[in-house]
Amino acid sequence: MIRVPFAELKATLVRIFVGKGMDAPRAELCATMFAETTRDGVYTHGVERIPRLLKMIDSGVVNVHAVPELKSGFGAVEAWDGKGGLGNLNARACMARAIELARLHGMGCVALANTNHWMRAGSYGWQAAEAGMIGICWTNTLPNVPAWGSAIPSIGNNPLVIAVPRPKGHVVLDMAATQFSYGALGAYRSRGELLPVPGGFDMEGNLTRDPAAIEQSQRLLPIGYWKGSGLAVMMDMIGAMLSGGLATHMMSKDPLLETGLSQVFITFNLAAIQPVEQYTHTADAVIASLLQPGEPEGTVRYPGEKVLKSRAENGAKGVPVREALWEELQQHA
Amino acid sequence: MIRVPFAELKATLVRIFVGKGMDAPRAELCATMFAETTRDGVYTHGVERIPRLLKMIDSGVVNVHAVPELKSGFGAVEAWDGKGGLGNLNARACMARAIELARLHGMGCVALANTNHWMRAGSYGWQAAEAGMIGICWTNTLPNVPAWGSAIPSIGNNPLVIAVPRPKGHVVLDMAATQFSYGALGAYRSRGELLPVPGGFDMEGNLTRDPAAIEQSQRLLPIGYWKGSGLAVMMDMIGAMLSGGLATHMMSKDPLLETGLSQVFITFNLAAIQPVEQYTHTADAVIASLLQPGEPEGTVRYPGEKVLKSRAENGAKGVPVREALWEELQQHA
Repeated sequence: MIRVPFAELKATLVRIFVGKGMDAPRAELCATMFAETTRDGVYTHGVERIPRLLKMIDSGVVNVHAVPELKSGFGAVEAWDGKGGLGNLNARACMARAIELARLHGMGCVALANTNHWMRAGSYGWQAAEAGMIGICWTNTLPNVPAWGSAIPSIGNNPLVIAVPRPKGHVVLDMAATQFSYGALGAYRSRGELLPVPGGFDMEGNLTRDPAAIEQSQRLLPIGYWKGSGLAVMMDMIGAMLSGGLATHMMSKDPLLETGLSQVFITFNLAAIQPVEQYTHTADAVIASLLQPGEPEGTVRYPGEKVLKSRAENGAKGVPVREALWEELQQHA
Repeated sequence: MIRVPFAELKATLVRIFVGKGMDAPRAELCATMFAETTRDGVYTHGVERIPRLLKMIDSGVVNVHAVPELKSGFGAVEAWDGKGGLGNLNARACMARAIELARLHGMGCVALANTNHWMRAGSYGWQAAEAGMIGICWTNTLPNVPAWGSAIPSIGNNPLVIAVPRPKGHVVLDMAATQFSYGALGAYRSRGELLPVPGGFDMEGNLTRDPAAIEQSQRLLPIGYWKGSGLAVMMDMIGAMLSGGLATHMMSKDPLLETGLSQVFITFNLAAIQPVEQYTHTADAVIASLLQPGEPEGTVRYPGEKVLKSRAENGAKGVPVREALWEELQQHA
């Protein structure tokens, strides 16, 4: 692992994306989002994803020129077509539109069909919170988890993001509907570690903490067993129904062909109906209450706290990148 | 357990509520909701809750005459004050208002402060789906779960409901943010059963399947460990911030004094932006996909499927009520 200054990392990514035919402002934004994700400590969904993305651009699965298009709308809710464009740029544009809708209507929802992997889910929660909005968003994925009771993947591990704005640090929950994402399983495996709690079933159907056994069986454990399975089903249905796009079971199981995703971006304009000082006070009070009197500092973390720590540390010391990946990126740049 | 005809159960409850001073139409609606919950198989949150509710009416914690009042609104989002009224009637009125807002604006949100226990969470999901809307709602609760990392309850087991309309059977997820609700723990304990999976920690901090040990420690396990803890925190924050009401940690830990709850009701008017046949087809296709080829029928259930089975069976054979409870209800009627 080496530490690369943020500006250098970003400049390298800009060159790569421009080389793939993106115009300069889009390459700049896309590079910023990837570099920020890794700087923020979400290592599985930042620059580590670039090699796979480049393959998908080369194969035509991801179209770097496409921009999302409005298909239908009524008041505060709209359906957009992502046209197979870059997942992170599409998602960012749709959350921006949901923020605009909330300024007009008190809340907003953009349902996006036909898009690609949005990389770090949390990005769009931070985006909403930075605009002073409550943000809720989720995506479906290719089929990579069995529904509860089944042994064959038919549902996705659909990540869910919920974000609340707070001057002392936005509160941003970013979680997959499975106990561990595939990214997290790979990270534990490559460090040679067992999972801290059972993360799925092995090929024989036993609960296990061995990440490789779960990658092999594809039987990831939904959070809360049957509950996370139900949650993933609901997110998939709403995404596909509201956007008019694909549900998980209609997609390829090959990650290099994962496309046609459906996503939902929801915003609430808090300041339109409540005094800022009052809800900010409430937010601070909830965070303060999580640690109870007599318990040692640091035993409870609020959602998003770790991101701010990584952001500060990696911003100052440089962004950690695997040396082999850094060399690979240089060759593309 | 005896089986009481639905009409007889409802009539008994109407007499009880009228006896507590409710006017006839409200008593009728309140009785219907309680009887339907038990008929639908959600035994922990139907007529079993009546004795506690009557105590809370007698003590003045629940005001049977109060109706919710609009405090502020902007476009599709509104904040209402529940004025300490009956939790189920308040919640039903607010979901009805959110449905109206979605007819006007494509989506709607009512945030409700200062209300009481809404009993069956799923009721308001079914209500939205019956109106053809996607519905999402949740409530906070008194502090009954430690935040992840802590051993002292400071967060609620905040139930979340997500509902999708579907002519062949609405799809309604109704889940607490803990692996088991207190109602479920009590039900397992009274049947002398262990939980099917670990449901919390005992007094020594070990994960356990013994429901009584968890009721004693109050250390329920959030779904997905740290993830469900984060989810409960977000629901609490949004409910309190958007409604201007209380967050969990501001409430009494005594169930007989559990009041001042904050709730959120969100609706999406699917038909305003997508063709009905198309999204209905998608919904049916997702449900059909959960069971994969070669797997035996009945091994996978969709959210809400069990409710429809109980509804049919208990509607035909009579609603199961504990004999001692039925006698107690007669004395109040």
